[in-house]
Amino acid sequence: MTEFDATKIAKICHIGTEHFQAQLQSTEHRLAILSKWDIPKGSKVLELGCGQGDCTAVLAELVGPNGYVTAVDPGSLDYGSPYTLGQAQDNISSSVLGPRITWKHADPIEFLKNDDGEYDVAALVLCTWYFASPKVLSDMLSTLTKSKIGKVCIAEWGLSSTQAQSHILAALAQAAVQYHNPSSSSNIRTLFSPAVIEASAIEAGLKLQSSSTLIPADNVLDGLWEVQMVLGTEFMKDLDSFVKDDRQKVLIKSMRDAVRASYEQAGGRKQIRSMDVWCATFVKA
Amino acid sequence: MTEFDATKIAKICHIGTEHFQAQLQSTEHRLAILSKWDIPKGSKVLELGCGQGDCTAVLAELVGPNGYVTAVDPGSLDYGSPYTLGQAQDNISSSVLGPRITWKHADPIEFLKNDDGEYDVAALVLCTWYFASPKVLSDMLSTLTKSKIGKVCIAEWGLSSTQAQSHILAALAQAAVQYHNPSSSSNIRTLFSPAVIEASAIEAGLKLQSSSTLIPADNVLDGLWEVQMVLGTEFMKDLDSFVKDDRQKVLIKSMRDAVRASYEQAGGRKQIRSMDVWCATFVKA
Repeated sequence: MTEFDATKIAKICHIGTEHFQAQLQSTEHRLAILSKWDIPKGSKVLELGCGQGDCTAVLAELVGPNGYVTAVDPGSLDYGSPYTLGQAQDNISSSVLGPRITWKHADPIEFLKNDDGEYDVAALVLCTWYFASPKVLSDMLSTLTKSKIGKVCIAEWGLSSTQAQSHILAALAQAAVQYHNPSSSSNIRTLFSPAVIEASAIEAGLKLQSSSTLIPADNVLDGLWEVQMVLGTEFMKDLDSFVKDDRQKVLIKSMRDAVRASYEQAGGRKQIRSMDVWCATFVKA
Repeated sequence: MTEFDATKIAKICHIGTEHFQAQLQSTEHRLAILSKWDIPKGSKVLELGCGQGDCTAVLAELVGPNGYVTAVDPGSLDYGSPYTLGQAQDNISSSVLGPRITWKHADPIEFLKNDDGEYDVAALVLCTWYFASPKVLSDMLSTLTKSKIGKVCIAEWGLSSTQAQSHILAALAQAAVQYHNPSSSSNIRTLFSPAVIEASAIEAGLKLQSSSTLIPADNVLDGLWEVQMVLGTEFMKDLDSFVKDDRQKVLIKSMRDAVRASYEQAGGRKQIRSMDVWCATFVKA
């Protein structure tokens, strides 16, 4: 992927003057994930769960001027701070990559049912944990199986790593609280392992063509962010408001203490690594 | 603790001819835990949650011929295989340590309320996770605070370790299933972190006198056992029978997959380490 310049793409995504390093690691991380798949120049890509468009911009660069990306997300255009989803998407649209991207503010399953576009690839990158339930995943995959899309590429945090125990524990602890939150807007609403996603894909009529594991670069900050979220006060507030049973509450408090112990043993914030990412390609069975 | 011979004590506990190494590591591990506390010769010790007596035998050796151990457990004497709780306790009673031990088959809280014995130390070694709820822990500690016991020593798995990620994840996964099992007989029924136990002790009127962390020896097998339990078929049966909600089921399946990934990355069964043990001494506040 040396032909692609992460800094150039990150500058397209970046808004304001601060935190460029955080943007750059996010773009580099998505470039590393997408390099696990063979998405040729000129491809028509449907991206589901595009969010603020960090992955969309990378996809648009990869497919080149003859390719196209349709990027779908159900999130409100007002969502996010200091810049909203709408501001972030508009910012990318005003760049050289803009003409290659169409944003669709829609529920991805509803979009798929009503859209008659043809795509070479559907890509779901680090978005499945936002889903409200396992049913959303299986409905999404069934709908994709019935559509005109050639390949389905999924990348999700892999729940594996020899170095990122804190990130794994923090993800599990967040999922344990958000299970009890009926209207979660957390990053992690329903946590799926690669094996669970694969089983859901097979049930929907897909088969695994290939998969690989990406070990994130040292500067990928997601692990640290999830750990900080669990150790912060908001997590305890959520625990107190959503989890009423004492036995469950103590279990999740203990998970949080395990995150803290792991964080301290790693040697603090600069040592927190992000867990592996599982990158899989599915085709119709 | 070089004056104490773990092999001699393990031989006293061992029944049959097989698996002596498993017994020896259990005895050595308990000797290592108890060496974190200063329990002088001649002490009168009340052990709560003694189970099959692995720790009881070590305590009886430590206190010497002028000391005494009263060992309480609510478990049925028929519980356990290939040898039951009753057989294991009888076996120790028939040894040279027998005269220093009294077994009480009773609920520890009920026992404490009705017993007028005086003890130098109450010891709870690797037993709190068997408790059915946080209330059992707080009731136990309140009752101890009101009794004539000088010190309360607690040792429990610490949910920390730089090397034992598999054991920590396996413990959390088991606790997540057993939360849904109203009549659990699992090793892990309610999982408490050191911070949760300490908070409960303080609320009960105790204060922490000292604490330390024990890193188990390489041959301590509990981590491997818990990992094997989670990866075994019984775990999936329990998950299917006790957890009815699909979202919760997927979360726990994903936790199990995280255990498997961690197990494989560690390099298989011979590389599985046990997590740290937290060893704390409390006195009345």
